[in-house]
Amino acid sequence: MSEDLPRHARLTRLVAGLPPTVPFVGPEVQERERGAPFKARIGANESVFGPSPRAVKALREAAAEIWKYGDSTSHDLRHALAREMGVEAGNIVVGEGIDGLLGYLVRMMIEPGDAVVTSDGAYPTFNYHVAGYAGRLEKVAYRDDREDLPALIGRAREVGAKLLYFANPDNPMGTWWRGAEVAGMLDELPRGCLLVLDEAYIEFAPEGTAVPVEAGDPRVIRLRTFSKAHGMAGARVGYAVGERALIAQFEKIRNHFGMNRAAQAGALAALEDGDWLGHVRARVAEARDEIARIAAENGLSAIPSATNFVAVDCGGDGALARRVLTGLVARGVFVRMPFVAPADRCIRVSCGTERDLAALAEALPGALREARQG
Amino acid sequence: MSEDLPRHARLTRLVAGLPPTVPFVGPEVQERERGAPFKARIGANESVFGPSPRAVKALREAAAEIWKYGDSTSHDLRHALAREMGVEAGNIVVGEGIDGLLGYLVRMMIEPGDAVVTSDGAYPTFNYHVAGYAGRLEKVAYRDDREDLPALIGRAREVGAKLLYFANPDNPMGTWWRGAEVAGMLDELPRGCLLVLDEAYIEFAPEGTAVPVEAGDPRVIRLRTFSKAHGMAGARVGYAVGERALIAQFEKIRNHFGMNRAAQAGALAALEDGDWLGHVRARVAEARDEIARIAAENGLSAIPSATNFVAVDCGGDGALARRVLTGLVARGVFVRMPFVAPADRCIRVSCGTERDLAALAEALPGALREARQG
Repeated sequence: MSEDLPRHARLTRLVAGLPPTVPFVGPEVQERERGAPFKARIGANESVFGPSPRAVKALREAAAEIWKYGDSTSHDLRHALAREMGVEAGNIVVGEGIDGLLGYLVRMMIEPGDAVVTSDGAYPTFNYHVAGYAGRLEKVAYRDDREDLPALIGRAREVGAKLLYFANPDNPMGTWWRGAEVAGMLDELPRGCLLVLDEAYIEFAPEGTAVPVEAGDPRVIRLRTFSKAHGMAGARVGYAVGERALIAQFEKIRNHFGMNRAAQAGALAALEDGDWLGHVRARVAEARDEIARIAAENGLSAIPSATNFVAVDCGGDGALARRVLTGLVARGVFVRMPFVAPADRCIRVSCGTERDLAALAEALPGALREARQG
Repeated sequence: MSEDLPRHARLTRLVAGLPPTVPFVGPEVQERERGAPFKARIGANESVFGPSPRAVKALREAAAEIWKYGDSTSHDLRHALAREMGVEAGNIVVGEGIDGLLGYLVRMMIEPGDAVVTSDGAYPTFNYHVAGYAGRLEKVAYRDDREDLPALIGRAREVGAKLLYFANPDNPMGTWWRGAEVAGMLDELPRGCLLVLDEAYIEFAPEGTAVPVEAGDPRVIRLRTFSKAHGMAGARVGYAVGERALIAQFEKIRNHFGMNRAAQAGALAALEDGDWLGHVRARVAEARDEIARIAAENGLSAIPSATNFVAVDCGGDGALARRVLTGLVARGVFVRMPFVAPADRCIRVSCGTERDLAALAEALPGALREARQG
């Protein structure tokens, strides 16, 4: 018997056959491997500008009450979100980040062999969940650095997809579609295909990027998070908005007491602090400009972004960009890069503080020089 | 088309067929229904004595850093747990509470129709996960208010069970087996059946209750939590200890960035505060005695407990105990009760503060009187 399989536990055929892949290697893992902390943590699209001070206060106040399980229905947060979005609480489920909700959604919908459409090089954690339930991933190339929604819909029709994953704005390129354009294409979506609209970065996007569809529209499930603009990635709070009858299905399988109690309180406080959100948006806009400036200063170009990160085109192929990334990491600057060509000609830099971006500016010329030497 | 099914999303047959059951109704839900907060929250086996002050400090300090994702490998906590237990870090996986880990484990092991053995009336969240993957639950009656391990093993052999769930100490009765007795029965466990040893309450149990098996024993996976003795139910931190090759399987399906960052820091601090654990154990022992005293004062008997709760025998059938529970809840005392006869002759009271138990003492005579009037 192989040493790599448990000696007594009988795994499902599906799990036994899964590869031991991990969607992302975290920055702490990299820091332990390199034996030193990063100078700039601008690789995971976290919000270095932090959460609202009100959220921090709420988290601190909740600490002594952490002996209590969190509210199993996330009642207060869910109702506040419903008011904010102008929908009913029954249209919303709160979960353990978008990652957790994507896992539940895939479990609800995908049997082995079911077709799922996504963009080639889009969010790997979604793909991880689809593979984990033996869905058949159908990948559509980006076009002009954007997810190609008409082609995605066309592929969904061809293969009879149950799910179509579409992030707007997109990750890892930061590009976007106007919401009205997306809404205008929904009638083309084949019946029996649910559009999984990942709006993790929507708060950073220009007015008009959010897709104007009713919460009750049965064709779309919308995913949002407190991990990005609200600066609470470590809290694990996401939510899904959709048709009541679809949202109700999560109740059959979700981990009812899975939400951290303090995280619920923190998210509620963050939601109520519109001023902080405005402040973060402004800082992110400045940082995007600064990243573009640093890129230009080094003869590189930045892809216009509607997110809190910028894809910087290193001007060569994936191997060149990989060497640039390696050079930056070696210099203490944590960044990531797209996985798939031609997007992998870029490195992906999250919006940082002035100090973070100064570290980038300092490290990039040397990393580029080395990378070009091959 | 039924209004109860999504109009566009095609669910798996399994999920479409699941009932909309929820393992537990949380106290906040009950408070909203009754329109008033509980005076005593002693129904969910939370630790009213709270977390270690060091854990509270760690949670507070982590609040401003919540913009960072948690370490995807829970490295520091996992290594501290390994040192504490005298095992390798590769024998441990940290997850989103025992509930989250049970969900992963069932997903790893159970295909539709696979047999799973548990005690009739034991932890419903485990049953929820088994049903959620269409496992076939085989239930064995309690004997003398204890889980009947020989009968459980016998049933596992008869039905070819992949998993045998066994909580020691038990919930909801609070009874226990000596660890050496359990270890002595492991050779009877049929090959290809994994013992899921839930030790959520082990810190409250007498010396010698923890089952003396090696972490590398492929027949057992051990589950522990920070929700009970460590007073951090709202943080969602549990861990599983077992054979390396089995623990490695979790990496294929778990939500790698699912752990709350502050919760990891808090759990680490809690683990290092043995004094607090000793303090909580002493308070729990006092509270158990006090619950037994209150029971006796009302002519009722308490089942001896190795946990932070006490099953109080109301001296009649399930209907009587249900009426006692309803009367307590109406008087602002949140308690729960076993679901299955004959255990359902009891109500289950979590160890409370002096004030909590004073509220119990005040409410119980009236609740009993009303219950006996039928």
